[in-house]
Amino acid sequence: MSRAPAALHAARKSVGQMLDAEGLNLIACSGGADSLALASAAAWHHQRTSGPLAGVRVGAVVVDHHLHPDSVEVSGRAVRQLKEMGLSPVRIFSADVDEDSPLGPEAAARTGRYRAFKKAMAELEASRVLLAHTRDDQAEQVLLGLARGSGTRSLAGIPTARGPYRRPLLGLTRAETEAICRHAGLSWWEDPDNSDPRFLRSKIRTQILPFLQENLSGSIYDSLARTADIAADDADYLETQAKDIFPQLLEDPDPTGALRLKLNPLRAEPPAIRRRIIALAVVAAGGANPSHERLTAAEKLVTGSRSAGPVQMEGDVTLHRGARGTGEYGKLVIAPPSE
Amino acid sequence: MSRAPAALHAARKSVGQMLDAEGLNLIACSGGADSLALASAAAWHHQRTSGPLAGVRVGAVVVDHHLHPDSVEVSGRAVRQLKEMGLSPVRIFSADVDEDSPLGPEAAARTGRYRAFKKAMAELEASRVLLAHTRDDQAEQVLLGLARGSGTRSLAGIPTARGPYRRPLLGLTRAETEAICRHAGLSWWEDPDNSDPRFLRSKIRTQILPFLQENLSGSIYDSLARTADIAADDADYLETQAKDIFPQLLEDPDPTGALRLKLNPLRAEPPAIRRRIIALAVVAAGGANPSHERLTAAEKLVTGSRSAGPVQMEGDVTLHRGARGTGEYGKLVIAPPSE
Repeated sequence: MSRAPAALHAARKSVGQMLDAEGLNLIACSGGADSLALASAAAWHHQRTSGPLAGVRVGAVVVDHHLHPDSVEVSGRAVRQLKEMGLSPVRIFSADVDEDSPLGPEAAARTGRYRAFKKAMAELEASRVLLAHTRDDQAEQVLLGLARGSGTRSLAGIPTARGPYRRPLLGLTRAETEAICRHAGLSWWEDPDNSDPRFLRSKIRTQILPFLQENLSGSIYDSLARTADIAADDADYLETQAKDIFPQLLEDPDPTGALRLKLNPLRAEPPAIRRRIIALAVVAAGGANPSHERLTAAEKLVTGSRSAGPVQMEGDVTLHRGARGTGEYGKLVIAPPSE
Repeated sequence: MSRAPAALHAARKSVGQMLDAEGLNLIACSGGADSLALASAAAWHHQRTSGPLAGVRVGAVVVDHHLHPDSVEVSGRAVRQLKEMGLSPVRIFSADVDEDSPLGPEAAARTGRYRAFKKAMAELEASRVLLAHTRDDQAEQVLLGLARGSGTRSLAGIPTARGPYRRPLLGLTRAETEAICRHAGLSWWEDPDNSDPRFLRSKIRTQILPFLQENLSGSIYDSLARTADIAADDADYLETQAKDIFPQLLEDPDPTGALRLKLNPLRAEPPAIRRRIIALAVVAAGGANPSHERLTAAEKLVTGSRSAGPVQMEGDVTLHRGARGTGEYGKLVIAPPSE
C-alpha cells in the first residue's frame, strides 16, 4: 500500500466536520471513485477508538439506477467493498427513473436518486446523507449555471450542506478521489454516461473545462469554486432579505385566492430585492420559480405605467396591476393557476 | 445605401435614452466599427428638428494611443467621418500610455484613455461621454471576471452608467455595429490587438467564446449578458447594505490612525455583508480592494478564536484582533500602511 496521499488527510478532516456524532450517517455510493473515497474517509472515523467521533455510526446506501446492463454487478461490488471497510448497515436501494421525463434523463435520474435517499433515511432511521461531489462537479455546476444565465443562486453551484445532506469532498479533485481509492486498494466503476457527449454536463467535463484550463491563466477549477463560494453567501443574504420583506408587502389574499402586493413599497425596493419578492409571490401562488425573462416582464408592471398586464408567468400564474376604482388599486395581483 | 438594419433602430433608441438633452455629449471614438456606429446613431438625434432631443449637442473625442504606426492616419480618418456626420466639436486627444505599467498593456491603455476622456470633458465642458462597448465586450468581461473568480461585482461586467459615462450599445452585437457602419457607408479600422493571442481578452474573444457558443445550447453571449445584469443588481444592493452598516460598526480612529471595528456586531453580520465591510475598512485605511483569499484569512480573525493576527492585506494594511486588557479588546484593528 502506497503512502497515504495528502488528499486522504484532507478528506478525513472534512468528513469529520460533517459527520453526525449521534445519529446514523449514510454514505451515498454509486460505486464510482468519488463515493468509494468518501466511504473510506468516513470508515476511518467509524473505526477510531478515541476522539469526539469515536464509534460514530456510518452506513451506506448504494443507489442502483438500473440504467446500465452491469448495474447489479456494479452495486454488488460496491456493497462488498463497503462492508469490508466495516460500514454498517450497507443496503442497495433502487432508484425509479422516469425515462420519459420532460426534464431529461439527467434530471430524472437525480429525482429518482434523491427519492431513494429519502426512503433509505426513513427505513434505516438515518440522520444524515453524505454525498461525494468534488471540486470538478462544482466547476461543472457553476458553468452550467453560467450557461443558463440564471443568476447568483445558480452560480452558487452545489451547496455544502442542505437539509440532511452534506458534501465534504467539494474541496477535492476527482483525480484526488482516484488517488485515495488506489491507495486504499478499492476498485471503482467508471460511469460511461460521464463521457457521453449527448449530456451537456459531460461535454462541459470532457471538452469545455479542459479547454478553459488550457487557455486561461490560473486554475479555472479554483476560480469556479471561489465564484461558487462567494455567490452562495451573496444568494443566501439576498434571499433572506427578500423573505423578510415579502410578508410586509403582502395584503390578505382576496376571495379568489390571489395574492396582492403593495405596489408603492415594492417599487421602492432595489431591483435585487424587488425581483426576488416577485419570485416568492409567484411561487407562493402555486407557480414555478420564474425565469429572468419573465421577471423582467413582471418588473415592468411594477415600475412602468403603460400596460397593466396581465403578464403570464411559469406555472400558469398571472400578474396584473390593479385597476383604478377597484379594491385592487395600488396593488400587484398575483393570480394562481385557474383549475 | 441598404435598408436600415434593425440594429440601427435599436441603437438610436438606446442612445436617445442616454443622451443629455442639456449638456454636450461626447462620443468616445477609436475609429473602430463599434464607436463609428455609436456616433452615427447619436448624429441622427443631433440632426432631428423635433422631439425632446431636437438639436441635442453631440461632439466626439478621438483618443489616439499612438500604439500603432498608422494611428495618426486612423484618427484622421475617424475625425473626417465624424465631421461629415455633423458632430461638433470633434477633437483628437492623445492617451499617455505607460508601457512599463506593472498592470500590463491593456490596463495601461485603459488608464491613459480614461485620463484623456477626463481632459476632453474639462476642456470642452462636456457633461457626458458615450462609450461603444457591445454585448460581445460584455461577454468577454464576464468571462474574465469568472476566470478571476473574484465574485459578484466582477461578474456584473461593464456598467451601463457610471459617473458621466454611458454605454448604450451593450445590447448590440459587434456584428450589428459593423452592419450599421456598412449601411451608413462608414469605413472602420480593425485594431490588430483585438486578435493578438498574447492578450487574455483576445483569446477569450477569438477562441473561448466561439468554442462555448459552439458547444453549449443557446447563446452564451445572451447568458453572459443576463448574468451580468443580475449580478450588477445584486452587487449594487450588497454594496449599499455594507456601506450603510460599515459606519455603525466603526469606532473613532486611534491616535496612530488605525481604524477599529466592533467585533461582536461584525461577527453577527451574514458573511456576504461581513466580508464587504472588512473590504471597505481595508480600503478606508489606505489599502487596495482585498482578494477573496485575503478576505477569507481576515474573516477567520473575526469568526475564529485561535490566532489574533496580524493578517497582511493588499496595500500593506494589516488586521489584528485587539488583545484582552487593552483598549483594543473586542475590536478588529485595521492598521494603515506604515510610512
